[in-house]
Amino acid sequence: MSAGVHPAWLGSAVLGDDVVLTRDPRCGLGAEAYTIARSGGVTTVVAEDEAGLMYGSFHALRLQDDLEAQTHRPFVARRMMQHWDNVFVHPVMGQVERGYSGGSLFWEDGALTDDPDRVGDYARLLASVGINSVSLNNVNVHAGEARLLTDRIGEVAVLAARFRQYHIRVYLSVSFAAPMLVGGLDTADPADERVQAWWATATQRVYAAIPDFGGYIVKADSEGQPGPFAYGRTHAEGANLLAAALAPFGGEVYWRAFVYNHRQDWRDRTTDRARAAYDHFTPLDGEFAPNVILQVKHGPIDFQPREPVSPVLLSMPATRLAVEFQATQEYTGQQRHVCYLPPMWSAVLSTVADRVDAVVTVSNAGDDRYWTNHPLAQANLYAAGRLAWDPTLDPTALLDEWIARTFPPAAAGTVHELMRDSWAVYERYTSPLGVGFMVHPGDHYGPDVDGYEYSRWGTYHFADRDGVGVDRTTATGTGYTAQYPEPLASQYESRATCPDELLLFFHHVPYTHVLHSGVTVIQHIYDTHFAGAEAVSEMVSRWSDLPPSAVGEDLHARVSDRLREQHRSALEWRDQINTYFYRKSGIPDTKARRIY
Amino acid sequence: MSAGVHPAWLGSAVLGDDVVLTRDPRCGLGAEAYTIARSGGVTTVVAEDEAGLMYGSFHALRLQDDLEAQTHRPFVARRMMQHWDNVFVHPVMGQVERGYSGGSLFWEDGALTDDPDRVGDYARLLASVGINSVSLNNVNVHAGEARLLTDRIGEVAVLAARFRQYHIRVYLSVSFAAPMLVGGLDTADPADERVQAWWATATQRVYAAIPDFGGYIVKADSEGQPGPFAYGRTHAEGANLLAAALAPFGGEVYWRAFVYNHRQDWRDRTTDRARAAYDHFTPLDGEFAPNVILQVKHGPIDFQPREPVSPVLLSMPATRLAVEFQATQEYTGQQRHVCYLPPMWSAVLSTVADRVDAVVTVSNAGDDRYWTNHPLAQANLYAAGRLAWDPTLDPTALLDEWIARTFPPAAAGTVHELMRDSWAVYERYTSPLGVGFMVHPGDHYGPDVDGYEYSRWGTYHFADRDGVGVDRTTATGTGYTAQYPEPLASQYESRATCPDELLLFFHHVPYTHVLHSGVTVIQHIYDTHFAGAEAVSEMVSRWSDLPPSAVGEDLHARVSDRLREQHRSALEWRDQINTYFYRKSGIPDTKARRIY
Repeated sequence: MSAGVHPAWLGSAVLGDDVVLTRDPRCGLGAEAYTIARSGGVTTVVAEDEAGLMYGSFHALRLQDDLEAQTHRPFVARRMMQHWDNVFVHPVMGQVERGYSGGSLFWEDGALTDDPDRVGDYARLLASVGINSVSLNNVNVHAGEARLLTDRIGEVAVLAARFRQYHIRVYLSVSFAAPMLVGGLDTADPADERVQAWWATATQRVYAAIPDFGGYIVKADSEGQPGPFAYGRTHAEGANLLAAALAPFGGEVYWRAFVYNHRQDWRDRTTDRARAAYDHFTPLDGEFAPNVILQVKHGPIDFQPREPVSPVLLSMPATRLAVEFQATQEYTGQQRHVCYLPPMWSAVLSTVADRVDAVVTVSNAGDDRYWTNHPLAQANLYAAGRLAWDPTLDPTALLDEWIARTFPPAAAGTVHELMRDSWAVYERYTSPLGVGFMVHPGDHYGPDVDGYEYSRWGTYHFADRDGVGVDRTTATGTGYTAQYPEPLASQYESRATCPDELLLFFHHVPYTHVLHSGVTVIQHIYDTHFAGAEAVSEMVSRWSDLPPSAVGEDLHARVSDRLREQHRSALEWRDQINTYFYRKSGIPDTKARRIY
Repeated sequence: MSAGVHPAWLGSAVLGDDVVLTRDPRCGLGAEAYTIARSGGVTTVVAEDEAGLMYGSFHALRLQDDLEAQTHRPFVARRMMQHWDNVFVHPVMGQVERGYSGGSLFWEDGALTDDPDRVGDYARLLASVGINSVSLNNVNVHAGEARLLTDRIGEVAVLAARFRQYHIRVYLSVSFAAPMLVGGLDTADPADERVQAWWATATQRVYAAIPDFGGYIVKADSEGQPGPFAYGRTHAEGANLLAAALAPFGGEVYWRAFVYNHRQDWRDRTTDRARAAYDHFTPLDGEFAPNVILQVKHGPIDFQPREPVSPVLLSMPATRLAVEFQATQEYTGQQRHVCYLPPMWSAVLSTVADRVDAVVTVSNAGDDRYWTNHPLAQANLYAAGRLAWDPTLDPTALLDEWIARTFPPAAAGTVHELMRDSWAVYERYTSPLGVGFMVHPGDHYGPDVDGYEYSRWGTYHFADRDGVGVDRTTATGTGYTAQYPEPLASQYESRATCPDELLLFFHHVPYTHVLHSGVTVIQHIYDTHFAGAEAVSEMVSRWSDLPPSAVGEDLHARVSDRLREQHRSALEWRDQINTYFYRKSGIPDTKARRIY
């Protein structure tokens, strides 16, 4: 392929005469990889396959300066965006579960979208950042959505055709009870031959419609979804049932490890939700079929602003693993707050990148005109793909890369300053020191310190008049620290070595406990909450100092509106958290600031 | 009228030859009154009007022994049951707002009920206990329901015909914005002549359809409902607008005094929701038209298990007043808990009966086969009517009267024991010492101690590590106590004289404060919560000791089921409240019982 061409995957972008693309099946670079160089004003891209040429072309588009020849190849072969879209509007969760960007890109009120061009734009957007697989529907599979697998597979094929243009394979979330829900059987037992036959036939039909179909995502025995426990089978037996059906076609099962008791009694101090995934799955290490990938949330609880890495990701050497991130900001401001998440993801990947076969991100995109409601939340979508391709990329450099491709130079500095530390800012004004939750039950937006404290969800902070935090030590607590390999087990076990930012995740300490930072826990709570809210106040000012013309009136107004809400919410967080802990501890702020 | 007759209002009941009814227009007893006597096996009833004869006949039905001639006349002429029924199912509140007894008796999914016989049965039920007026729809008037006043008045006429048979007049809740919602005007300003003309014409049409129509119920400027504040008019001007339209026909306006700021900031300690009704309405005393009745909830907040009497009821001598009770158990167990409320109502009436022109009760009946979901909740409906007729009746005697008319003698003792102190039991295991709320937000069922603590609803307890309660004193608090006449103002102002059961409503006190009962506040909390849950446990045993045949299998099973839920809920209340206050106070239970 030569200069001046315009392959479909470039969309409206054009590579000029100064770009030379060469596909060389014998170059030995491997799938999806490419070599790129720029010299004397000419960029050359060489790749073994069409996908590599595409990724190299997108790289060429962002290249500014001369470049010695570099070869780029993806760190993991599976870089997936997962959607929690419902086909039918769910009475509580809406069209997209935990979606904050309008409706679904794929379905609307029970029917396939009538805007397939928009799907094509989205596919190109994903491909341009390195995503090569996408699952189309919510992991909570309701009865209507279960039919995507069977009589509605034609709609999936329509979407698959769009994504195929960009070398993206599609996957479906399926219900483990599909043989009953849509198959007319009276069981979904993996040991039942009728069930096995049903999955084999159903899968065969899927591949007849979509020959390059990727496979299934399964949330089983989790938060009310059906699973193998109902039949006394293990999750390996459950996953292998579906894997057997997919294997003849090269398909794979992403089996979620998010299994815990969601009907816990708050009075029961012996059960620790953080332990659940490890306790359920590590005994099964080695028992999963080769085309099963165990999909593990990056932390042991549920996408809180700060969690330790899940020990499951460090403890199953004989199992293929995926790490799951959440770009949709369920617990991190719901795309009304600026919260640039790659620093968090990058830290996780630095620990687990060489242990995983796949990086999965829950999408934050919808049919919103900016894709992500908060225009600045696009950066999370962008970086999710780029980090899956190369986990060693620096988050701040990625931010600047996104900014350079999105905003004019006059706005770059403002956007950079607004976003760079925004995750740290968000953490400061929300739940302190890794303790998590303290959000409003149900919608998970805004503060409610005791909102989950007496609930069945296993997410407690145990604050009393003397102290706060969850004792997960092996010495005196739930023993969760023992799930980690050394040196992490020892590091987390001891208050002396546990990082400040995770202290309350692992330890119940007095408010007067002195952190490594030199201040007490209670003073840290006050200081960070005043500082976090103040930082948002500065973000508001900074943005309002930017002339609207620098980014466009509409975008400027959109961001202003969201920043106002972030500021209101940050003040609410600050005051509720500070008041709550002042009322409990009785310890005044050393700086005598206003606590209500 | 003579013996052996069978007027329509008796339904399937029959008065035998031993009952002699005499209507004597010249007997001078007055409207609705009757004289009853029984001697030598013959009961005689004399009344001036047909209604009096009806009430006397129902009395004859419950008469067992000989009786010297007694004259009975209602204490107040207006004894109303109000329904919070929606015509259309509301997405959050359902067919009946705060309804716990199935669907509406009047409307189903947007249409008039197709079971008018059931309405007739209900009307007879109400008449038999002395109710003579009923409002048919929710005080929160949505757009669909607003049309009852206009093009759907024919449906109201159908219902009115049913109620008329039992001398019950019907009323409608109307929207203050009706001239805009259904009248096509661009204002609802009471000073606008077009608005006045619209109400006059609309009301004329109502009376053309229903000549004995009762009048309007209005919730204005309250929890989002429209009202005169939007036009800078007072509530007297608003109420008098509707009163003028009704006056030519003898109709009346029930204008609710439930007006407060429902968007309060929890940080604002100067605003006190308890003050709101008094602050809004007492300056208007004397300004309301003669056919306006100001309808006042019996307590200053909102139907909590324990509140002081509303000072509005004691402070508006030049205004006609109605006291409002709530039979539907929004905050008192939602007809899953046994909670016999007449002891509460009786105590209120002992203070306000001679100051009110009307007694209003929010109905707890629905299309449930037992009318009230919990079969024992019927007693609240029964006693609501009987107390409105005669506020001096003893609540326990009323309970036994209801039991005797409902259950066979073999069950009477058990039911009596289960119910007599059930309000006190409920109070023991829920929020302590009059502080109120601590319920789960939204549905108001079950405990959530901080559920409303940082909300906009103005319902706070201010618990910290040292103490709990709301300082409403004049000396150091919100000044609410000054809204009471003496001696109540002084009694509530002082901790020394404030009744224990209202202590935390009026005072913020240390957990170590010693009550008149001799125990500290914290120990009182522990003691009452253990005792309350234990009492429910005994209720469960007591009921299971009753042979199902004594009351019928179905009813026995229904009550058993509800008692199980009450027991589960009482344990949850006990443990959440005790744990919450133990964590805050750090003070152990002197009896070393289990606190989590």
